[in-house]
Amino acid sequence: MYELGVVYRTIQRADRATAERLRAFGSATVHEAMGRVGLLKPYMRPIYAGAQVAGTAVTVLLHPGDNWMLHVVAEQIRAGDIVVAALSADCSDGYFGDLLATSFKARGAHALVIDAGVRDVKTLTEMGFPVWSKAISAKGTIKATLGSVNIPVVCAGALVMPGDVIVADDDGVVCVPAARAAEVAEAAATREANEGAKRAKLAAGVLGLDMYSMREPLAKAGLRYVD
Amino acid sequence: MYELGVVYRTIQRADRATAERLRAFGSATVHEAMGRVGLLKPYMRPIYAGAQVAGTAVTVLLHPGDNWMLHVVAEQIRAGDIVVAALSADCSDGYFGDLLATSFKARGAHALVIDAGVRDVKTLTEMGFPVWSKAISAKGTIKATLGSVNIPVVCAGALVMPGDVIVADDDGVVCVPAARAAEVAEAAATREANEGAKRAKLAAGVLGLDMYSMREPLAKAGLRYVD
Amino acid sequence: MYELGVVYRTIQRADRATAERLRAFGSATVHEAMGRVGLLKPYMRPIYAGAQVAGTAVTVLLHPGDNWMLHVVAEQIRAGDIVVAALSADCSDGYFGDLLATSFKARGAHALVIDAGVRDVKTLTEMGFPVWSKAISAKGTIKATLGSVNIPVVCAGALVMPGDVIVADDDGVVCVPAARAAEVAEAAATREANEGAKRAKLAAGVLGLDMYSMREPLAKAGLRYVD
Amino acid sequence: MYELGVVYRTIQRADRATAERLRAFGSATVHEAMGRVGLLKPYMRPIYAGAQVAGTAVTVLLHPGDNWMLHVVAEQIRAGDIVVAALSADCSDGYFGDLLATSFKARGAHALVIDAGVRDVKTLTEMGFPVWSKAISAKGTIKATLGSVNIPVVCAGALVMPGDVIVADDDGVVCVPAARAAEVAEAAATREANEGAKRAKLAAGVLGLDMYSMREPLAKAGLRYVD
Amino acid sequence: MYELGVVYRTIQRADRATAERLRAFGSATVHEAMGRVGLLKPYMRPIYAGAQVAGTAVTVLLHPGDNWMLHVVAEQIRAGDIVVAALSADCSDGYFGDLLATSFKARGAHALVIDAGVRDVKTLTEMGFPVWSKAISAKGTIKATLGSVNIPVVCAGALVMPGDVIVADDDGVVCVPAARAAEVAEAAATREANEGAKRAKLAAGVLGLDMYSMREPLAKAGLRYVD
Amino acid sequence: MYELGVVYRTIQRADRATAERLRAFGSATVHEAMGRVGLLKPYMRPIYAGAQVAGTAVTVLLHPGDNWMLHVVAEQIRAGDIVVAALSADCSDGYFGDLLATSFKARGAHALVIDAGVRDVKTLTEMGFPVWSKAISAKGTIKATLGSVNIPVVCAGALVMPGDVIVADDDGVVCVPAARAAEVAEAAATREANEGAKRAKLAAGVLGLDMYSMREPLAKAGLRYVD
Repeated sequence: MYELGVVYRTIQRADRATAERLRAFGSATVHEAMGRVGLLKPYMRPIYAGAQVAGTAVTVLLHPGDNWMLHVVAEQIRAGDIVVAALSADCSDGYFGDLLATSFKARGAHALVIDAGVRDVKTLTEMGFPVWSKAISAKGTIKATLGSVNIPVVCAGALVMPGDVIVADDDGVVCVPAARAAEVAEAAATREANEGAKRAKLAAGVLGLDMYSMREPLAKAGLRYVD
Repeated sequence: MYELGVVYRTIQRADRATAERLRAFGSATVHEAMGRVGLLKPYMRPIYAGAQVAGTAVTVLLHPGDNWMLHVVAEQIRAGDIVVAALSADCSDGYFGDLLATSFKARGAHALVIDAGVRDVKTLTEMGFPVWSKAISAKGTIKATLGSVNIPVVCAGALVMPGDVIVADDDGVVCVPAARAAEVAEAAATREANEGAKRAKLAAGVLGLDMYSMREPLAKAGLRYVD
Repeated sequence: MYELGVVYRTIQRADRATAERLRAFGSATVHEAMGRVGLLKPYMRPIYAGAQVAGTAVTVLLHPGDNWMLHVVAEQIRAGDIVVAALSADCSDGYFGDLLATSFKARGAHALVIDAGVRDVKTLTEMGFPVWSKAISAKGTIKATLGSVNIPVVCAGALVMPGDVIVADDDGVVCVPAARAAEVAEAAATREANEGAKRAKLAAGVLGLDMYSMREPLAKAGLRYVD
Repeated sequence: MYELGVVYRTIQRADRATAERLRAFGSATVHEAMGRVGLLKPYMRPIYAGAQVAGTAVTVLLHPGDNWMLHVVAEQIRAGDIVVAALSADCSDGYFGDLLATSFKARGAHALVIDAGVRDVKTLTEMGFPVWSKAISAKGTIKATLGSVNIPVVCAGALVMPGDVIVADDDGVVCVPAARAAEVAEAAATREANEGAKRAKLAAGVLGLDMYSMREPLAKAGLRYVD
Repeated sequence: MYELGVVYRTIQRADRATAERLRAFGSATVHEAMGRVGLLKPYMRPIYAGAQVAGTAVTVLLHPGDNWMLHVVAEQIRAGDIVVAALSADCSDGYFGDLLATSFKARGAHALVIDAGVRDVKTLTEMGFPVWSKAISAKGTIKATLGSVNIPVVCAGALVMPGDVIVADDDGVVCVPAARAAEVAEAAATREANEGAKRAKLAAGVLGLDMYSMREPLAKAGLRYVD
Repeated sequence: MYELGVVYRTIQRADRATAERLRAFGSATVHEAMGRVGLLKPYMRPIYAGAQVAGTAVTVLLHPGDNWMLHVVAEQIRAGDIVVAALSADCSDGYFGDLLATSFKARGAHALVIDAGVRDVKTLTEMGFPVWSKAISAKGTIKATLGSVNIPVVCAGALVMPGDVIVADDDGVVCVPAARAAEVAEAAATREANEGAKRAKLAAGVLGLDMYSMREPLAKAGLRYVD
C-alpha cells in the first residue's frame, strides 16, 4: 500500500482544541474511550518519564538505517503536530538527535513517535523534547533512499493517517482517527466525570466488588468462596 | 494444577515481623540467603526506582485481557500484604491503574507484583504505590472470566504460595516460602553482619583475591599470569 | 579464539588524555567519527541516567553464572580503566554488586560494561559507579570456573581489545581501537566544531533541507511533492 | 481506526487470475516487484515447509484469547480467499485447529494468515491446509467478544485491506493491494523473464560483479583491493 | 521453595494406562479438557515433527551451564517416565546429547522436556528419542553444582510435580496433575466423542455459526452485518 | 575496529584436510574439543535439517538492508570456503537468494553463514546449498554502501578471522581459529575414540553415575537421597 517518493503537503488535520482536550485525559483513558483500539505496541517507550502530549500526526515512512526523510518531513510540520515515523523494516538505529530535535521544535512539533531508535537522549531530555521510541542507540544513519511523507503508515502495529490525533504519555501512545476525535473526547470526559467520586469511595475502603455491583455476576459465573 | 473459580479466604500468612526484617536486606541478599532460588524472572521491573518492600503474598490467577479477579482479590487483602498476580497465558495489557491502586492501598497492600502490564504509572508513582510488572501499557481489560484467589501460582517463572513473603526492590522480586522465612532472615543477617567490614577493606584497596583467599584455588584451577 | 585461564598483566593502554577528550564528545559523536562502527548492541543500557564516561578497556571473559574472574580482573585495574566483561554464553544473572563496585572504584575504575546482569543497583547509583549492562537481576553467581583477563573479547556484539577506549553514556557504549583513538578524537572535534552554528540556524527555523543543500539530490532521487 | 462488531459482506476482491499469476512468482519476487513494501514481519512462519499460495484477503479482527470471530468469518469465505486474522493485542494462543480448518477448506479458503498461534498442526499438515502464524500453541480460546470482519487490519505490521492479494510461501507473506495487483504481476514477470539466463551465467562461473557491471560503481564508491 | 541437593527416590506416579490414554488425545484436546491450564509456554518446541508422547514426570532442577543432575536423574527413571528438566535461571546451553539419550532410553524414558537447550539433534532424531526444548545449541555444560531430583519444579512457566502426566506433541507440552489424570481423560474422551460428526458436517459446508448455534448470541452481543 | 571499503585478496586459509576432518565430528564435539568457546549464538539456524559442513572462512561485513558486498565476496571464494557474513547493525532482511547461491556454488562455496535473513529457501533446499541464518525473509536489499571482505568480523557474537575453519550442522555453527585447527581435530578425535564403547555401556543400562564415577563427588558435594 505504500507509495514511495511522495510528499503530501496538504492534509486534513484534526481540530487543535480537540487534540488538546484529549491530551488532558492521557493515553489510558483515551484508549478506553475509543473502545480499546488504536494503541501502538507497548514496546514504544518515552525517553524520559513525565511527558504528556497530544498533537496532529504528520507521518513519514523511513527505510532501515536511513533518516533522509526526517529532513523532508521537518518542512511539513506545523505548530501542534507530532511526527509519526514508521519503518519499512525493523531497525533500532538512532535516527534522531539534538539537531533534528532543535529543528522540529522550531517548527512547532510537540513530539516524535518513531518505530526505531533515537540518540542524544540526555540533550533531548534537557530540551524537553519528548520522544517515544522502540530503542535508544548511538548508531547514526545515512541519507540515501526515498520514503514518503503524509501517507498512511503502520507504526508499531497501529495504522496512523496524516492528521489523526496522537496522545502519548508514560503509559504509551494512542492514535485517534481525526473523524472520531470529538466523539472520543466526549466519551473520555464522561468516563472521567465520576472518577473522582469513585476514587474517594475506594480510598475510603469501599470495594470495587460493591461499587460496581460485581458480586452477583461473579456468583452467576460460578465463583465460590472457601474458608 | 490450577483450580478455577475459587477464592480461598483463609490463608496462613508468614510472620509480619519476619517479612519486615527481610525487607531491610533487599532482594539480592535474601536471594543469596535462600541458596539462590525463588527469584522471579528479571523481566519483572519496578515502575519507578527506589521502592523497597516486603509483604505476605495474596495470590490471584488472571486470564489474558481480563482483570475481573483483581476486584475479587482486593477484598482478601490485609494490611501488609503484597498482591501477586499470575497469568494463564502471556499478556502485556494494562490490568491495573490508579483506581485499583487506590483500593489496594486503602486495604493495606504494600505493592503489586504482576506478570503482565499496568497503566497510570505516573499517578501510581505520585501515589507511592509500587508495582513490579512485565510491561507498561495503556490497553485496558474486560471483566468476563473467572480465575482464582489464593491458590498456588507461577508468577514470572517462580512458584508463589499464598502467605509466602515477597521481597522486592530495584534488583527484582524474590519469593520466600513462609516456612523458610525465619531461617532465611537469619542467614541474611549472618551474610550482612560482616559486609561492613568487607566493604571497608575493599574501599581501602584490599583485593577480593586476598580477602577471600582465592589465589590458591585459582592457581589450582590452572590460572596463569603472563606479563 | 578465546584462550582460557590466562591473565595478561601487561597491556598497551590508549592515551589517557585522548580517552578523556573522547568522553566529552559522547558515544553518538564518537560513533559517527569512527565511520559508524564499534557500537555495542543497543540492549546495553545504563543502570542510571546521566553518566558519561570514557576509559581504557580491561577485558574479562566470564562463564554463565560464574563471577570468579571479576575478582581476578580487579587486580589488573589501573586508574582510568573501564572493565569490559564478555560472556561465553548468554546469561542475565547479577554478576556484580556493591562490594565489587567498592573494590573496582578503589582501584580507579571508571565504570563496568557487562554483557550480563548486575545487582545492588540502588547502592551503585548512590555510589555514582556507572554500569552498562544487559539486565538487572538479584540472582547471584558461583565462583568455580576460569575465564581469562585481558584477551580480546566480543562484548554485546563488538570486538574489544585490551587497552581500547570505551566511551559510554545514555546513548550506549562505543569501543574505539587504541590505534585509532587520536584520529577519531580529531574527527569528532571537526564534527562538533560547527554544530553550534548549525543548531542556532535550525533553532531559527532554517530547514536542514536548505542548510545541507538536500533539495537537489532529493529531486534527483525522484521525490515529488503533491498539494 | 477499528470499527468493532461489524461484518462487511460485500468486498471488492482482486482478480482471481491475477492472484493465481502472482502465486507462481512467490513472495520474494512479488515483494521486489512492489518496490519492497507490503511484507508481513518475518516472524510469520508457515506451519510446514513447501506450501506456496495466493488468494484474496478476507480479513478478521480478533481479541486476545478469543476466536469467536473465526466462525463469523468462515461464512464470508469464497473459493480462492485467504483469511487474514489480525489481533487487537499480542497473543500466542492457538486460535485455529483442525475443525475450523475443515470448515475453511470446505468454504474454499486457500490458507490462513494469523498474527497469533494455531494448533493441531500435525493434522493441518496432513490435510494440506497451510497456515502462516506467529506461534504454535495447544492453548485454546474462548468465544465471548466481538471483533469485525472485512475491515482494514494491521496484521504482523502490514496493512491489509479486504480483497487485497496475499502471496505466501516459505519466504514469508506479502500483501498486494487489489489496485496494484495487475501492475505488480507485470513487474514480477519482467523481473523473472531474464532470471533463467542470469542463473545459467552465474552457474557457469560468471560473477555478478561483471554480469551487473558493478566494478565501476564499486570503485567510484571507494572500494580498494589489497593483496 | 526449591530444596537443593536432594533426590527423592519414592514418588507417586500417575496410572500408566491413564497416561497412555491421554497420549492418544494429544496436547490440545487434553489442555481443553483440563479447563485450559497446565500448558508449558509455547516456546517449548519439539526437535523433530510428528512425535506424540505421554508419560509420568520425573523432575530435575538444573543450574545454568551445568548438567550434572541429568546423570543423577537417569537412575530414577522407570519405564514410561518423561524427564522434566527445569532451570534455576535462563540458559540455552546444550545440556543433553546422544549419550544421555542412549542412557535415558535404556532406562525406559519416553522423552525429555527441558527448559534449556539440547544438541546432537540429528542423532536424537535418528534414534527416535523426542525432546521438547527451548533451544538447540552445540554448547556443552559442566558438572559442578547440585540441583535436585523429584521436587516440584516450574518448567517453562508451568508447575510440574513428580508423578504428574506429561502429554507432548507438535502443538506443545501439557502437564496433567496425577490426581486429575483420570477425570481429564474422561473429559477429553467426551470432547472427542462427537468430533467426527462435527468434522463431517463442517466438511460438508455446514457453518460453525449454525452447528454451534452462535447466531443468536452474536446478534445479542451486537454484531451487525453490512452489505 | 572495522576497516570499511577494503577487500583483502590474500588470506591464510586453514588446511583443507583438517577442515574436512573437523566436519566429520560435528559442531558439538568440536566445540567441546575447543574448550567450549567459538560457538555462534544459538539463534543461528539451518534453513533445512541434515546438512553438515566445514570450510575455510571468507568473511564479509554488510550494512543493514544492503547486500552489495555479497557480490564482491563471491569473487574471493575458493573451492572449500564458507562465506561468513556479519552485519554492522541488526537486520533481518533477505540478503541472499537462489541467484547468489548459484554463483557461490559455482565458485566452490560449501555454505553461507549470515547474521541476517535469507530468501528463496525452498529453492536453496532443492539446490542443496545450506545456509545458517538468523531469519528467513522475502524482503530484498539495495546495493549502495561499501563494507569489507576478509577482515575480522563478529558474526552472531563470535569473532571470525578470514581463513578460520567453520563447522556447521543441525546443532549450530562453530568457528575454529586456523592456528588451532589441527590441535582441535586431535582433541575431537580423542573425545570420539571411546564414545562407541560408552554408548554401548549406556545402551546396556549402565548409568553415567557409575561409568563416570560420579557418586563420590556428588556425595562430597552434599547430595542426599530420600526414600
